[in-house]
Amino acid sequence: MEERIFVFAVGTAGSGKSYFTKAFSDYLDFKKIDHAIVNLDPGADYLPYEPDVDVREWFTVSDIMEKYNVGPNGAQIISADLIATRAQDIVDDLDLYSAEYVLVDTPGQMELFTMRSSGEIILRTFGVNNSVSVFLLDPVISQQPSGYISMVFLYSSAVLRLNIPQIPVLSKSDLLPEHTLRKITGWSDDPESLYDDIQEEKSLSRDLFHVLKDLGLIRPLIPVSSVSGYGMDDIYDIIQEIYFSGEDLESIRY
Amino acid sequence: MEERIFVFAVGTAGSGKSYFTKAFSDYLDFKKIDHAIVNLDPGADYLPYEPDVDVREWFTVSDIMEKYNVGPNGAQIISADLIATRAQDIVDDLDLYSAEYVLVDTPGQMELFTMRSSGEIILRTFGVNNSVSVFLLDPVISQQPSGYISMVFLYSSAVLRLNIPQIPVLSKSDLLPEHTLRKITGWSDDPESLYDDIQEEKSLSRDLFHVLKDLGLIRPLIPVSSVSGYGMDDIYDIIQEIYFSGEDLESIRY
Repeated sequence: MEERIFVFAVGTAGSGKSYFTKAFSDYLDFKKIDHAIVNLDPGADYLPYEPDVDVREWFTVSDIMEKYNVGPNGAQIISADLIATRAQDIVDDLDLYSAEYVLVDTPGQMELFTMRSSGEIILRTFGVNNSVSVFLLDPVISQQPSGYISMVFLYSSAVLRLNIPQIPVLSKSDLLPEHTLRKITGWSDDPESLYDDIQEEKSLSRDLFHVLKDLGLIRPLIPVSSVSGYGMDDIYDIIQEIYFSGEDLESIRY
Repeated sequence: MEERIFVFAVGTAGSGKSYFTKAFSDYLDFKKIDHAIVNLDPGADYLPYEPDVDVREWFTVSDIMEKYNVGPNGAQIISADLIATRAQDIVDDLDLYSAEYVLVDTPGQMELFTMRSSGEIILRTFGVNNSVSVFLLDPVISQQPSGYISMVFLYSSAVLRLNIPQIPVLSKSDLLPEHTLRKITGWSDDPESLYDDIQEEKSLSRDLFHVLKDLGLIRPLIPVSSVSGYGMDDIYDIIQEIYFSGEDLESIRY
């Protein structure tokens, strides 16, 4: 059987993970590429897509609140940790599908996935060598130079934990005026322009920008829109490159 | 009236923010220093201290779930955003106390505070020039060299958003064996040892460590224990230094 590729949608609460999953699924449908969708968020209320495998069939955050008599904070932590116990069941369920791609929608709060061991267990079970993450940058925060750098640190933190190739994308780019969009993607291409723009906000070392760029932490940012489907082809092409062109993975990861 | 100092406990879900707040409050009690405690977490179930001002008096995550008929994810985002609308009320309530220090326990999920505008609004209302954050590093994740670097990126992301001096501390250090504790604090003092230890896990550039250190992102880590009260005096001393010794704040922030 051909190896499936897992595409994890990762990002902070409200960054558009579920809508990205829906849009990328629509794109794969259009390309007639077999795929399945896994929902890993036990706290999801409404999903814009129909998941093929859904952790909520086993438990939800609301169930956990009731069963363990805990508040929403405790229930989210418990249920994020419980996901790991279902990792193999999810893989078994996926065997029923002949999917080339598996889109994985991760828990609402990013830190529940990236900063707890359940995320690691899920990845090891699904397969680290055939997984990639799409990191969704919040478009409102990314408009400020310091907000954008803060997002660079945040996705660098995630990539070190998840240890799989990561594609940083600018989420909900349809919400941004054209010149703002150009400014933000400009920063990701040219740290010097980012350095100039940040000086109005605060003083940061010029070295920082060059080092972040040299280390591969500041990486070209792909604007996407889950409303128009903009950028989905770019993401697809990058995943193909990562897995089928023999490019050095290390250089893509960090 | 003398200026109050706000001490924000910041960290990922389960990093021990509420217990730290309790332990630091006990320390201030012991030193006979007037202080007040603010709970900013509308999802808190049980708190180990008695808050003087509590957002839960205005709303809780459970209330929001019911009132807006949303799931736990949506309710946490809505209630985190609603906190901002109470920023001035909190300051007004605090005026009833003659507190030199105000300890602020932030929402359970770190990203709800650092990555949404309500965090900025709270800080602007409380006062950025008399606020400091104590960032609690998870002791389990910080044991792995890559986990520790991931935490360095995470707190660097937070400090850029919050824009106030930040004190990184190793939380729940009583859970770690003495030699592990020494290893982790050793990394924060000497990037070369961190570089050596990380090679077993993955290959990262040696430059990265030196640059993170040179830029002031890898900073001495203070081990604390909210069980024994260990490290509270160190934190108190650092806050005093930041606010009363005239040290250059910029060099402390980044």
